Amino acid sequence: MDRDRILLTPGPLTTTLRTKLAMLHDWGSWDADFNAVTAGVRSRLLDIVHGHGTHVVVPLQGSGTFSVEAAVATVVPRDGHVLVLDNGAYCKRAGKLTQMMGRRVSTVAFAEDAPVSPAVLDDQLRTDASITHVVLIHCETGAGVENPLADVAAVCERHGKGLIVDAMSSFAALPIDARTVRFDALIAASGKCLEGVPGMGFVFIRQAVLDGCAGNSQSLAMDLHDQHQYMAKTGQWRFTPPTHVVVALAEAITQFVEEGGQPARLARYTANCATLIEGMGQLGLQPFLKAEHQAPIIVTFHAPAHPAYDFQRFYQAAKRRGFMLYPGKLTTVDTFRVGCIGAIGSLEMQQAVNAVGEALREMGIPTAPA
Amino acid sequence: MDRDRILLTPGPLTTTLRTKLAMLHDWGSWDADFNAVTAGVRSRLLDIVHGHGTHVVVPLQGSGTFSVEAAVATVVPRDGHVLVLDNGAYCKRAGKLTQMMGRRVSTVAFAEDAPVSPAVLDDQLRTDASITHVVLIHCETGAGVENPLADVAAVCERHGKGLIVDAMSSFAALPIDARTVRFDALIAASGKCLEGVPGMGFVFIRQAVLDGCAGNSQSLAMDLHDQHQYMAKTGQWRFTPPTHVVVALAEAITQFVEEGGQPARLARYTANCATLIEGMGQLGLQPFLKAEHQAPIIVTFHAPAHPAYDFQRFYQAAKRRGFMLYPGKLTTVDTFRVGCIGAIGSLEMQQAVNAVGEALREMGIPTAPA
Repeated sequence: MDRDRILLTPGPLTTTLRTKLAMLHDWGSWDADFNAVTAGVRSRLLDIVHGHGTHVVVPLQGSGTFSVEAAVATVVPRDGHVLVLDNGAYCKRAGKLTQMMGRRVSTVAFAEDAPVSPAVLDDQLRTDASITHVVLIHCETGAGVENPLADVAAVCERHGKGLIVDAMSSFAALPIDARTVRFDALIAASGKCLEGVPGMGFVFIRQAVLDGCAGNSQSLAMDLHDQHQYMAKTGQWRFTPPTHVVVALAEAITQFVEEGGQPARLARYTANCATLIEGMGQLGLQPFLKAEHQAPIIVTFHAPAHPAYDFQRFYQAAKRRGFMLYPGKLTTVDTFRVGCIGAIGSLEMQQAVNAVGEALREMGIPTAPA
Repeated sequence: MDRDRILLTPGPLTTTLRTKLAMLHDWGSWDADFNAVTAGVRSRLLDIVHGHGTHVVVPLQGSGTFSVEAAVATVVPRDGHVLVLDNGAYCKRAGKLTQMMGRRVSTVAFAEDAPVSPAVLDDQLRTDASITHVVLIHCETGAGVENPLADVAAVCERHGKGLIVDAMSSFAALPIDARTVRFDALIAASGKCLEGVPGMGFVFIRQAVLDGCAGNSQSLAMDLHDQHQYMAKTGQWRFTPPTHVVVALAEAITQFVEEGGQPARLARYTANCATLIEGMGQLGLQPFLKAEHQAPIIVTFHAPAHPAYDFQRFYQAAKRRGFMLYPGKLTTVDTFRVGCIGAIGSLEMQQAVNAVGEALREMGIPTAPA
């Protein structure tokens, strides 16, 4: 098969050829030309959240989880107390990494098929004055729920608590405006809705809290304060950057801007999501979430309730037809997931629906509206 | 200028077009095809150190320093005591990250123009029984010294101490044989002598110590024991891998094997180094190190003792001629560095020497044997 399969996974995802072609050059990580690429990426990232003058953005090597861990390690003092609003797998991961690094952590559990509740958060902060920081996952890709960022931020601000937002799979698609939504740190990565390749994350930090972050991190590699200071002084990354990933991200951001920025990207993903859900519905496949909780990033579908269904066989059958699906991540219900993000449009989503229909019929599973 | 400049830097370095072309595809990080790439990389890395059956190799996202920190965090217990053999900047970095993560650390200082001394290590281990692990930088690229890995390993083994080797810039070029050299962990990265692109490291861990590493790490992202367990169980990376970097490394290793493996690579770099030192000598530029201490990886040269010399101007003049040099990292002497590694041969090294000669003459600095 000559043509690449389309990744319906929430990162790594399908990128444009133009983004990948940017990786056909080697760059000196010490050189002024490369420093200019880094500076351009940072400036344009700040554009996206309207954070110039109030926030900095610190890029970090590694996957998005490295940046989440770095954000907690850098922003939360050693004697801080973190409250994780937990409605899914990525929330649990944030809790675990906070606990492992020795910070005190509490968790408030919510159902995984609905957003976390700002009212419950308000109660928690009223009850436990020792909490210093709240961790929110903006779009919890475990199920695909969009959590109420603005409302959670307002509660945190009212109580004078720091907010750390994992916006990994929402940034650049869902609107995030640092002028109206107060956060101490907000994390995303190259290989998600900016449609770059994976290999680096980045953390927005509010300048008002930045100076207080010195010395918090117990990790040299993940110390975002140190990374920021060094970059401010030299224009360089402290340790070898993933140069090819960085130039691919720069090229991806250029295309993001050309497309019309966040509103245009959200519109495309929203159309992708609508095409997907409508098409799957015609095959008898129902989304796990209510429409009002569904972010247009990744959709969890109930697995067909048919004895012939097996995810591995289903995955292989769809892959043979050119589309890579994603397994479910829920523990209680049998599901699979389909990403709506990447350099794809409604055309590809309709093709994916057609491939899913063929795959199911090949497995002997009837496809018809429920 | 259409042609890419040649990087005479010790990683990122110049890679082949074939390696870069491998990045023109997107891979699903969950997919069996990508798992096979990862498994192939790991198996061929074990080939290089002759570690099959006795060692595992655990890849990790991020720069090489992330893997060094992860190795210390994973292999050294919380109450361990690390002795760093310090003859340069990368040794100091290893000491710093060990101290930051809260492990007890001691340092024994050596001159930066000579290898560390196994005899002094022997004394130290005799004097302080609380030391549990020794950290050695195999090739200290601060000055370019090759440290005596086999002798240091023998001393550690005799005393029953763990050895952690940062082989970042030596692995795949200098010989390392796990059958005869005992280490607990040995670290390298994609973008060095294997001639891949930067973005991931990997750590060889001796199987006899692996089980005892559970629970040592205070970092979730850098827990190599957890990364290894997950990979053994699923074939996947725990968190999103830098897929394009991984496939580029796979392609680079294929070319490494085709070239003749480590002996062939060492021969090419040795020839590069000889061409460089001889040619620079004819321009009147002398290496900082004695020949017997010089690894054929990166050469530190004394800066010309001429009032017209300025590194930034020199760098720009060489860059205009197609070659990117590297600044010195010594605090006491004015130097610059030239890497011998990457997808280049003696032809490119001679061209680099010619460019350096032209650059110096342009600056009004005479070029003639001292």
